[in-house]
Order: sequence, then structure tokens, then C-alpha cells
Amino acid sequence: MSIQKPKGTQDILPGVVEKWQYIEEKARDVCRRFNYKEIRTPIFETTELFQRGVGETTDIVEKEMYTFPDKADRSMTLRPEGTAGVVRAYVENKLYGEPDVSKLYYIGPMFRYEQPQAGRYRQFHQFGIEAIGATDPALDAEVIAMGYLFYKEIGLKGVTVEINSVGNPSCRAVYREELQKFFAPVKDKLCKDCQSRYDRNPMRILDCKKDQEYGVGAPSILDFLDEECTTHFAKVQRHLTDMGIEYVINPRMVRGLDYYTHTAFEYKAAGIGAIDTISGGGRYNGLVGTIGGSAIDRPGVGFGLGLERVLLVLEAQGVDVQGVLPLDAYVIGMGEAAENEATRLLFELRAAGLSAEKDYLGRKMKAQMKSADRFAARFTVIIGEDELSRGTAMVKTMATGEQEEVPLANVAAAIAAKRGN
Amino acid sequence: MSIQKPKGTQDILPGVVEKWQYIEEKARDVCRRFNYKEIRTPIFETTELFQRGVGETTDIVEKEMYTFPDKADRSMTLRPEGTAGVVRAYVENKLYGEPDVSKLYYIGPMFRYEQPQAGRYRQFHQFGIEAIGATDPALDAEVIAMGYLFYKEIGLKGVTVEINSVGNPSCRAVYREELQKFFAPVKDKLCKDCQSRYDRNPMRILDCKKDQEYGVGAPSILDFLDEECTTHFAKVQRHLTDMGIEYVINPRMVRGLDYYTHTAFEYKAAGIGAIDTISGGGRYNGLVGTIGGSAIDRPGVGFGLGLERVLLVLEAQGVDVQGVLPLDAYVIGMGEAAENEATRLLFELRAAGLSAEKDYLGRKMKAQMKSADRFAARFTVIIGEDELSRGTAMVKTMATGEQEEVPLANVAAAIAAKRGN
Repeated sequence: MSIQKPKGTQDILPGVVEKWQYIEEKARDVCRRFNYKEIRTPIFETTELFQRGVGETTDIVEKEMYTFPDKADRSMTLRPEGTAGVVRAYVENKLYGEPDVSKLYYIGPMFRYEQPQAGRYRQFHQFGIEAIGATDPALDAEVIAMGYLFYKEIGLKGVTVEINSVGNPSCRAVYREELQKFFAPVKDKLCKDCQSRYDRNPMRILDCKKDQEYGVGAPSILDFLDEECTTHFAKVQRHLTDMGIEYVINPRMVRGLDYYTHTAFEYKAAGIGAIDTISGGGRYNGLVGTIGGSAIDRPGVGFGLGLERVLLVLEAQGVDVQGVLPLDAYVIGMGEAAENEATRLLFELRAAGLSAEKDYLGRKMKAQMKSADRFAARFTVIIGEDELSRGTAMVKTMATGEQEEVPLANVAAAIAAKRGN
Repeated sequence: MSIQKPKGTQDILPGVVEKWQYIEEKARDVCRRFNYKEIRTPIFETTELFQRGVGETTDIVEKEMYTFPDKADRSMTLRPEGTAGVVRAYVENKLYGEPDVSKLYYIGPMFRYEQPQAGRYRQFHQFGIEAIGATDPALDAEVIAMGYLFYKEIGLKGVTVEINSVGNPSCRAVYREELQKFFAPVKDKLCKDCQSRYDRNPMRILDCKKDQEYGVGAPSILDFLDEECTTHFAKVQRHLTDMGIEYVINPRMVRGLDYYTHTAFEYKAAGIGAIDTISGGGRYNGLVGTIGGSAIDRPGVGFGLGLERVLLVLEAQGVDVQGVLPLDAYVIGMGEAAENEATRLLFELRAAGLSAEKDYLGRKMKAQMKSADRFAARFTVIIGEDELSRGTAMVKTMATGEQEEVPLANVAAAIAAKRGN
């Protein structure tokens, strides 16, 4: 039996890869405009980083990590998300010593050992940004606006923004106690996950899909925010309004990660059926200190967007993303001498910046013309024995059928000129 | 102690990442012109794939792989090179059923557990291409020319091409016996690696740096090529000459991998000291069958270029690769109302396609101007209380010091117009 790809992974092939390229180019362009610079961190990190940076009691760390010992018996883990590595790099490379806020982005593979399903893979891909070094609410608003603009520009329809404040550690401590009091009478009726959340992080019971009924009438975090948190949240809203970004406040939104403070947000869109969360992010004052030590704690805010999810929703919405680009020229040589000349000319066209192709299978003229069609060639360049003896080639414009005999030395320029029209 | 990146890995930070982006964009552009399409295969594959596709007796498979069991106890390995995964995907996705040659490229991380040194990392990055499905020598020449053009266009100086034919399995079998006869008298004097190569692959003794003296006068593979191999090699040379690619025939060049047939090639350049091999590739008729089964054997040819190596040699040669791009606009608001307006305007500029930034640290005017300088801003946009009351902003061209008061609604258009000049 032949060898197959590992379960839950995918091959991204020509014909589909162009959509990925398009989305990634758009992500990079949005980052350029918002002044975020790319950072690339290793595919694997020490396991301890994720235990500390994602949280030992999260599903990710408890169940879903690809962890293995290296040859020196150090425990390594394929990164399950992007923030911990970026924060580790921020600390290790002393980016906190730079005068401006560190505005960073990443695009790349992440790994979680989950049960594969539509749009969920064990190797998946995220575009994420992290702005580290300032508490300014304008930065929270910028991060939210940036993800919104990204989704809008790639063509996703009906994207909405939900925001919440999850407070700071002190007001959240008060709120957690109130929530525990509220859920205490029904604790035994909650799902197994939520019974464990009751002690660890009762706020997460609020966004459990199974236990919606028990959350009705629960106290709202927004009634427990202190002055600092209230002001911060109001300013975020003010900036979003100024920017023309519509949002809904959802006081039950918590996000899966425990490290968020102040702003949490989610993007929603109608994809396959119901309106659903497509991604989100939040502010994480305290995380840098958790990873790097309290002496270099710095506030941060960011998001992580799953690219498989984007492509799935785009497809469900029937949005047509960039496909295969047409070829500039397909070169055909008839007879061995002309074929040699075709190979030479091909290189000349390519060196001049044109995309060009020929046959490598000894096929007849007709089959070569079909191949040119498959590549959506805009021009075919035909060198027969007659043309070769005259030092020329026939350049045919495929859209019109128009043909022109051109000296071999002028073919590249002729195609560049015709293509320009 | 804070957490550090794993030994032998690197963080690629802003200021350096721009060089990577530049090189990768150039690689993608060369691929577009040569009609190679991107393929993305998983970061890890079943260990068996590399045992079969790279070879069980190679250093890579014997010593250097990151191998680990997944949670279902299947043996997985972080890919140590790119060809095996691409060939596996070619077979599994039945690309051999398509009418044209599969011309594929990849750019991404690879992993080998080696002793780190300058330019050699445990996570390193390759740009590679594979053309699968044809024996045409024009394809060998195209692959060689493409790598050459890539190196030339990114600015690498003095790149030379060495080529060889390593024959096909039948003529190579004869040659191997002759080589064993030649080395038999000195077998005991060879280095330990070469003593083991004597039985497994005596051709590799020829490119051992330690045993150069014993190879003097060894028979040449080129004297043992059969007619098919001789013709193929002659045609490759003919095409290279037609394309104007200078090359040297090096009958001792073997390459580290055992699966090459016919053409093998290397690129050399003067980097840190002596002229050294920077990368290479070759034809691999037979490899697709080894991975996919003999029923779907297909010929192939390709190269794999290390990007760390490229950057190291570029730096050693003093070649200046693209650095950080300038920012279009830095927006400064003086006072809370103007700062809110600055945040709004910032989003408007970015949505209009301009790169723009502001302060998030509550810094004074002078410190903000310094920040604008660090980002190499082409324009600063200043909104004071007076401007705000008039609904305008001052747009300052940094290169000339020229200032113009512009209605807020026209700032984006004004900068786009000025920038165009």
C-alpha cells in the first residue's frame, strides 16, 4: 500500500493553493497598512512555554498537544497557537527595550490533536497579530478594526463584531464569587465540563452551549467592572464608533483562554447554517509577565484567525476567491531544431519577466495547443521549420485568433506590449 | 529563569524578516514565470515515508530526524527535506492522472537534529521545486536554469553551476564495481564513513573531503554511461548552452542522496572564504515508484535551496537586500479630542490603502516626531486644537519640511497624491 498523509492533515494543491496565497497576501497587506511587522518563531517550543503561556488547565494543554522528547530528552511541543511563541520571542529578544509598541504578526501552521471534522485539522493555519507594550484603548480598537477590515476585504459577507470586557483580576475575582453563588444551586445539573469549570473558571459556564438554560438571569460582568475597566471599555467603544465599526456588546462572551483582561472580542458570520463565531481575540495584560517574569510584564492585545475557517465560510457563502492566474505564453517548436530554439526562447521570455511554458512530453501540435488552453495561455508562440529558417516565430493572441510573425529577438517585447493592452 | 527558544532554532524578527520576505517573493515570482505552482504538504509525515523516500541508510534517516509517536502510537517525523512529502502528495492525490507535467514548488521549514553552527539550524527553511512526469532533458536544463536565475536575481554574485551525470541503475552498477576495485587496495585507509560507503555507495567516497587523496585517478562515471545516459546528458548541456548558462562538468559530484539518476547539479558561490556549494539537485527517475509503488513510477527532477545559506552568503558578499519599508503617514493628535480624531483618521488612511501609525504611549509631540522618524514616515499629519476646530490637519512632507493645511476629509487623497510624486 502506498503511504498516506497523517490523519487530520491536508495537502494544499495547485488550484486551491491560490486561494491561500490570496488570503495571505491580503493579510500581509492589511498588516503593512496598520504597521504590524512579521515575526517568525519556531514550529516547536519547549513544552513548559505552553503550560505557562496557554495554561495548564486548558483543553489545549491537557489534551491536544503534540508533545515529544528531543534526542537530549527535553520535552518539546509543536505550537498549538501563536501567542505564546511571540511573547516568548518578545521577552527573549528584549523587544520591550525598544521605544515603540511592538506590533507583530504571524502567519503559519499550528498543531492540535483533535478529532478531525469539516474545517478542523490537526495541522491548521492561523493569521494572528500581537500589539505589546501599551494599555491605550485605541490599540484594542485598532486590533478589532484590523480583523474586521481583513475579513471585509477578502470578501466575507455579513461579518459582525461582538465585544465584552472581562475586567481585570481584581474586579473579576468579585464577579467570579457572585457567579459561583448564582450557579451553586444548579451545579449538579451542569455538564461535566462545566462542573469542573465551576471551580476553575465559572465565567466559561456562560458560553457553554449545553448549559444555556442555567445561565439565564446570571449576573453580568459589566456590573462588576471597576473604574479603570469601565473607562477602558468605554474608550474602546468610542473609537470603534468613530471608525464606523458596528459592534454588539455581549456580556456573556468569555473566549476559551484564561489570560484575557479588559477587552475580549469575537467575529461572527453566517457560514454553514447558523451565524457562528469565526474567530476572536482580546487584551492580555499579565501574560508577558507570566512567560517572562514579573520584572518585564507588559500589556498586550491581539487576535488569532483560523485560515481554514475563513476558506470554509467563504466557500459556504459562494464567494469567488482568486483562482489560477493565466499564463503569458506557451511556446511550441516543430521539429528538433525548432524545439531547441523553443527551449532557448522560453528561458528568454521567463528571464524577461513573462510566465511561459512548453511541452515536455513530445506531444503533437494539437495536443500542445490543448495544453496551452489548460494553462489559459494568452499567447502561443509557434516556431516551425519555415519560421526558424527566417529567424522568426508566429505569435498568436488566443482571445482573438490574430497572428503575427515576429523576429525571434523581438518576441518577448512583442508579448509584453500586447499583454499591456 | 525565563523560557528560551529550543536549541538550534531561531526567531526571525522585524528588521531581518524583510530579507526573508524579499527572497521568498522573488522565489515565488521565478516560479510564476517558469509555471511552477505551489504545493503545501504537512509539516510532519509518517516516519516510513522518509525511510522509503530519503533512504534508510542516509545520515538524515539514521541520525537526524525528529521522530515521535502520536497519541495513537503511530510513528511521525518532522519533515527533514521537501521532496518525499511532495512525491507522496503527487501519488496520493493522483496528480499523475493529469495531462501535463506536474511542476510544483514549496517554501517552508524543515527539521534536522544536527549540531547547530553558523547558518545551520535544526529548523531550517528550503525553497524547492519538483517537475514530475517527463524524461525530457529540457526539463533538467529548466530546473538548473531556474535556480541559477533565482540566485542571480536576488543579487548573489559569482554563482557557478556544476553538472554531472550519475547514470541510470544499470550503467551505475558497472561503475560501482569498477570503483570498488579501484578503492579496494586503500579501503582500510579510508575514513570510517567512507569504509561504510565502500559497500553501500562507493560513489560517495569521491566527494568525501577527508579522502580526496585516495580518489586521485579513480575511474570517471562519464566513461561508463550507456547510450541513453550519454544522449540525455548531451542534450542537457546543449540546452544550458543555448540558454547562456555557463556550467562546468564535475564527474566526481555525487550529491548526498542516493536516489539521483542522470543529471546531478550543484550551485557554487564565494561566500565565507572559499568557493563552496550552496545547494543542488538532480533527476530522480525511480523515486516516485519507491514511494508510490512501481505501477505509478514517474520520472522527476528538482532542486532544494536552503534559505539560511542564501542569506548567509548574501551577507558575506555584502549584498544589500531589501530592508524595512517606509511608512506613509504618522498621525499626531494634540489633546484628547484631537487624539480621538487621530485614531479615526488613522483607520481611514489604512482603509484607503496607506500605511499609517500613531502613538499609543501618551508621548509628547517631540517624542512622537522621533517615533515618526524611526518608522521613516514620509508624511506626518498633525491635528491640534485649532486644526480640529477648523476640521483640518497639517500634512507635513518629511523630506522637504513643506506643510499644508488640508481638510480632514481630504487627507487620505492628499497623501496618496503627494506620495505618487
